[in-house]
Amino acid sequence: MSKQLTAFETAAWLKDRDNFLILTHKRPDGDTLGCAGALARGLRECGKYAYILENSGVTTRYLRFVEPYYAPDDYTADFIIAVDTATVSLFPDNAGIHMDSISLCIDHHKSNTFYAGNVCLDSDKASCGEIIYDILMTMSGKISSKTAECLYVALSTDTGCFSFGNTTANTLYIASLLVEAGAPNKVINKLLFRTKTQGRIGIEGLLLSGLDYSFDNKVVIAGITIAMMRISGATEDDMDDIAAIPGSIEGVCIGITIRELKSPNDCKISVRTKSPYDAQEICAHFGGGGHKLAAGCTIEKSIPEIKEMLTGVLEKQIKNNQ
Amino acid sequence: MSKQLTAFETAAWLKDRDNFLILTHKRPDGDTLGCAGALARGLRECGKYAYILENSGVTTRYLRFVEPYYAPDDYTADFIIAVDTATVSLFPDNAGIHMDSISLCIDHHKSNTFYAGNVCLDSDKASCGEIIYDILMTMSGKISSKTAECLYVALSTDTGCFSFGNTTANTLYIASLLVEAGAPNKVINKLLFRTKTQGRIGIEGLLLSGLDYSFDNKVVIAGITIAMMRISGATEDDMDDIAAIPGSIEGVCIGITIRELKSPNDCKISVRTKSPYDAQEICAHFGGGGHKLAAGCTIEKSIPEIKEMLTGVLEKQIKNNQ
Repeated sequence: MSKQLTAFETAAWLKDRDNFLILTHKRPDGDTLGCAGALARGLRECGKYAYILENSGVTTRYLRFVEPYYAPDDYTADFIIAVDTATVSLFPDNAGIHMDSISLCIDHHKSNTFYAGNVCLDSDKASCGEIIYDILMTMSGKISSKTAECLYVALSTDTGCFSFGNTTANTLYIASLLVEAGAPNKVINKLLFRTKTQGRIGIEGLLLSGLDYSFDNKVVIAGITIAMMRISGATEDDMDDIAAIPGSIEGVCIGITIRELKSPNDCKISVRTKSPYDAQEICAHFGGGGHKLAAGCTIEKSIPEIKEMLTGVLEKQIKNNQ
Repeated sequence: MSKQLTAFETAAWLKDRDNFLILTHKRPDGDTLGCAGALARGLRECGKYAYILENSGVTTRYLRFVEPYYAPDDYTADFIIAVDTATVSLFPDNAGIHMDSISLCIDHHKSNTFYAGNVCLDSDKASCGEIIYDILMTMSGKISSKTAECLYVALSTDTGCFSFGNTTANTLYIASLLVEAGAPNKVINKLLFRTKTQGRIGIEGLLLSGLDYSFDNKVVIAGITIAMMRISGATEDDMDDIAAIPGSIEGVCIGITIRELKSPNDCKISVRTKSPYDAQEICAHFGGGGHKLAAGCTIEKSIPEIKEMLTGVLEKQIKNNQ
């Protein structure tokens, strides 16, 4: 049975202990990595020993925030802490040996399964970084510029640079304090939000040029073939949130991305809708699932065949919501 | 001779007066319009008469923030206030009759020419909206949700939703207070930053698919033809900041956009560089000007001819900065 702690109680819990190892989640994003980097730094600034368990999934742009704190092979921690990780299935393989001994989990996901001995959960926060900020400020009353930088990465990446719907007054307020504390927001924003790789630019060009509008432009379907990936030189790293593009077009109610996986007859379908159109209902027809406004499924057919198969379902959605 | 006022003094100046007409600048953006809407509302909430001079350049997305306050034909103002406007040449034609009688200018442009009787200028602010916030809070100690919405539009549009290099701790702090006061940031962000028109999507697709990389991918040139505009259905409204795209590609040091104007032999060239590459130096060769990292010129040649003409200048830039 987990014990729930407030940020204030978590700070006291950490103050009373030492020798920490911090775990991040698989396919790590800016929030889990920024939180790990900030917590490791912040704990060290309080005179503690704190390391991060190496995560092989870290991409180049985030490596410098965590690599300096990677635990040496012979490090034995007394307390294991997980950040921004809702459930044990989300940990990378090398964290497996710690699964039954996680002392503390700090998280903002409503879906958290309370797998840790102590849980500091606040699902009203847009990013886990906001909770870490409160904990570190309670512990020492100050934030160094390097710690602020890590937390700024956490806040800004989980909110799309404060543009996503999860951004709250608190997110913006903590961000202002982090910039005040020396977080180089100009440099980080340029790198994370105002730069695209050549691969991303290439795949976007191909995708945007081949959009298929239908139903009075209420529906748009994008196809991503294996050939397009090869031509553009795009890698998996370049595909972040690409399925959001069709749904972001003005007037479009249902945006669909069909992507060839290992072969042209094996595709992943991502559906984004605007209310009241129901993405989940569309995907349920093909054995998929998700939420009302974002859902997905896989179909072992080619892109043209899938477009054909979708027609009836889309017709029904459009008709029912007129 | 202008008198300089602080935000505090400006609040006192406004409190002592009544019957205001607010002017915005030509090709109005979210900052000038958000400020005008907020100031008109804020002054009315203090019991004053305040109207905005109609601006024919307002696009649909911003109209609802200013239209309710447009001055009727028979309105006679005692005090003319300009917001976010650095110099008189930036006013629309219908503001011409007021040029010699502007009592107050509230602005954040360093280039302000002090054309008004009183000037409240703070060039450290990312947006004029931050200054208006300080003034209105000083006047009445509170901000209504509608006023907060206008100011949120001002702050967020002038900072690219807090991603541009001008974003400060103060910008984020005021934004947090505006959201706290009821500014619907989720709705506004979706509309202004997470939606693209079909025309914009179309022109971006064509532009991205036709990028011309050279000099080991350090230089990239984009062409925008009249035919591309026709095919995509893009209008001038869709072209905002499109010249920033080539320069935003990872590894690119010089990003150039060549756009056909009235004919294929009459082109506008926009150059964006990363330091130490010099956009101004490149454009000076063709009689253009600008800043070190962003400059432009026009050349009465076709896109292929201009690419040819640029080769020597680009070679020199690349060589000098190796």
